[in-house]
Amino acid sequence: MTADTPAYDPGNIFAKILRGEIPAQTVYEDADTLAFMDVMPQGEGHTLVIPKAPARGLLDADPASLAAVTATLQRVGRAVKAAFDADGLTVFQYNEPAGGQTVFHLHFHIVPRREGVPLKRHEGGMADPEVLAKHAARIRAALEA
Amino acid sequence: MTADTPAYDPGNIFAKILRGEIPAQTVYEDADTLAFMDVMPQGEGHTLVIPKAPARGLLDADPASLAAVTATLQRVGRAVKAAFDADGLTVFQYNEPAGGQTVFHLHFHIVPRREGVPLKRHEGGMADPEVLAKHAARIRAALEA
Repeated sequence: MTADTPAYDPGNIFAKILRGEIPAQTVYEDADTLAFMDVMPQGEGHTLVIPKAPARGLLDADPASLAAVTATLQRVGRAVKAAFDADGLTVFQYNEPAGGQTVFHLHFHIVPRREGVPLKRHEGGMADPEVLAKHAARIRAALEA
Repeated sequence: MTADTPAYDPGNIFAKILRGEIPAQTVYEDADTLAFMDVMPQGEGHTLVIPKAPARGLLDADPASLAAVTATLQRVGRAVKAAFDADGLTVFQYNEPAGGQTVFHLHFHIVPRREGVPLKRHEGGMADPEVLAKHAARIRAALEA
């Protein structure tokens, strides 16, 4: 960990998801990583990929954990693109509040994109849980295809 | 490579940088990756990290190459944050034109951020090459610190 990275806070919402304390619409899980739907999507199919190991952000992540997250990012990215028949994908990764981060557990955003459709604001509102469940099922089906 | 990813075009500008056909303000290089200054920065210190192996984007990258890029992203990210005394970092990775991609060689953007300073538009203009050279030197110094 770099000296200027604040300590990891295990009370963050993604740590709670990892501990099963709060639910998430999961699309993929392996020994090192988890992928699930963003509850405030910037577009249909907005998915998050996180490591299971504690890390506040990119800079303090264990290298092996970071490599595992990136492999899952690619795997889930392919499935998200296929599931939503997207023209492209936009990936974001925010570090610290000035960098756009609001949940302090390392995460990568994957947003499927279509020509001419702008991104919604991340704070644009909570998605319908039933819609998120259907989207998660589409991505899981694409992962198994 | 997934079936729906277009073929890699070796005429792209980052391939030309890798072949030494056009210059770049390099901050880091190893056997598998290169990092250099973005010539149309969205903020002071905007740096790009790319694999040396050909890949159009996230989805068609060789897994080992992708892991190497991510390790460099972390290493260079720490140096960029230190060099510009940033409050945070924003990382972008765009795939296909609908996803925001304009150069079709896999690349991650690292933009150092300060509280209250919004991102500039990527097409906001070419940076002064002398300024970019100074910024690259600051990041190289931070990498060696």
